[in-house]
Amino acid sequence: MNVGFIGLGVMGRPMAGHLIDKGHTVYLHRVKPVSQFLVDKGGVAALSAQEVAEKSDVVILMVPDTPDVEAVLFGEHGVSAGLSAGKLVIDMSSISPVATKEFAARIKALGCAYLDAPVSGGEVGAKNAALTIMAGGAKSDFERARPLFEAMGKSITLVGDVGAGQIAKVANQIIVGLTIQAVAEALTFARKAGADPARVREALMGGFASSRILEVHGQRMVDGTYDPGFRIHLHRKDLSLAVDAAKALDLSLPTTAATQQLMNAAIAMGDGDLDHSGLIRTLEALAGLRR
Amino acid sequence: MNVGFIGLGVMGRPMAGHLIDKGHTVYLHRVKPVSQFLVDKGGVAALSAQEVAEKSDVVILMVPDTPDVEAVLFGEHGVSAGLSAGKLVIDMSSISPVATKEFAARIKALGCAYLDAPVSGGEVGAKNAALTIMAGGAKSDFERARPLFEAMGKSITLVGDVGAGQIAKVANQIIVGLTIQAVAEALTFARKAGADPARVREALMGGFASSRILEVHGQRMVDGTYDPGFRIHLHRKDLSLAVDAAKALDLSLPTTAATQQLMNAAIAMGDGDLDHSGLIRTLEALAGLRR
Repeated sequence: MNVGFIGLGVMGRPMAGHLIDKGHTVYLHRVKPVSQFLVDKGGVAALSAQEVAEKSDVVILMVPDTPDVEAVLFGEHGVSAGLSAGKLVIDMSSISPVATKEFAARIKALGCAYLDAPVSGGEVGAKNAALTIMAGGAKSDFERARPLFEAMGKSITLVGDVGAGQIAKVANQIIVGLTIQAVAEALTFARKAGADPARVREALMGGFASSRILEVHGQRMVDGTYDPGFRIHLHRKDLSLAVDAAKALDLSLPTTAATQQLMNAAIAMGDGDLDHSGLIRTLEALAGLRR
Repeated sequence: MNVGFIGLGVMGRPMAGHLIDKGHTVYLHRVKPVSQFLVDKGGVAALSAQEVAEKSDVVILMVPDTPDVEAVLFGEHGVSAGLSAGKLVIDMSSISPVATKEFAARIKALGCAYLDAPVSGGEVGAKNAALTIMAGGAKSDFERARPLFEAMGKSITLVGDVGAGQIAKVANQIIVGLTIQAVAEALTFARKAGADPARVREALMGGFASSRILEVHGQRMVDGTYDPGFRIHLHRKDLSLAVDAAKALDLSLPTTAATQQLMNAAIAMGDGDLDHSGLIRTLEALAGLRR
């Protein structure tokens, strides 16, 4: 398949690499020294997002945030300038579910198809082609994209119509962020009250408090090591998507909002580039326990 | 072993039953028609907590809250009036970690030993002798109690010194309560944004958002069925222990406090006797979605 790939960052590079490895002709946007290896293994450097769209049947986006998607799709020499009827745009970035519906409508007006398909699993999942992919769009478009998804991910779900993938991703980030905060409050409580957080965590594994977060991020909190992983900065962006969408929807998300505020504090205290398990350091500071 | 059992409620009845089944002589406090079956299978009804303590080597408490433990231990005709040196008191209730240390000191002053050993697992865990038991106290006392714990529970951990069991239980209830709230916010977001909460939940299972709560309580939220399980009323009590201890310790637990406030709201709206997964109904009301 002729596939365009726009967004060759930490996630996009290995994802595009898997597509090349599967034998697809992959047109690459903004190749830099760090992504030159993709050209060496057979990818084709393009001059603009427009050229990527002109040469590809399917255009994949993997960029940081909502304004980046808008600029790449509809800016000067953007994707929309290069599209022709029948092509498929897949946005794998994590962006606003509300904006996604608008972008999809504008792409469909050009006679093209649109899927949102954000991922979770991080850099490790991208490198191992083991991403969780949450898609929104028409079933037929999802099936057309399936071979590409299968090259990059393991758990692949069509959640619903356009936007549903982004909704699921935001829901995922709400649960992950708030569960990290929950574990952080519990372990800080244990420590301040005079118990060993490591033994408390062990006593709680296997019961209703058990989760991937208690297992993985709880261990990081016990060890006090916060190499990312997924940075607090990026998680704050994702909770901002939740809070912004909540306002647009007249929806109250009390502990999502509180956790976003605590991420603001973590960043103010210089912890923005730590793994999100490092949120516990903010609580420790509030408790006079900062290491 | 001669064992006293005080607190023959929903949890205490099956727990005392397992001890009788294992061949222990069990002295029972306040036998009522609903607990008469324990006498029928060999338990011995006592006239007071004092008499229970006089006749037993080990006295187990399983009562609702901190003031109940204090009354049973130190009130008129209470346990302390019947204790003699060398006896062991085990409080399996879920109460204040701070008060626990004080109660233990007063019992130790009588020449007796003290363990706190709260449980999780609920009525089902109690009936199936599958409770998680989180103990605090001396290692030798813990070993003395081990055969009794093994008659009632499966995962049995000595977390630390006296009070550490209650600390672990509070930490457990913080994580469980806040994770329920996290899943509730995520699924309400999904629903209000126009996606199917059932499919969003499925897409999230297996990733970092996965937990026993997403699995069990998330399913209850999707189904809209909130038969307890563990009632919001009782969980609010446990978060009150966390919030009260946090004040005593100069500790800030922002989302624990927020979740406790939302439990206040749930109870105000008539949902106190629902399973704690029913917390989602408060969010639904706030979002104009109340079913």
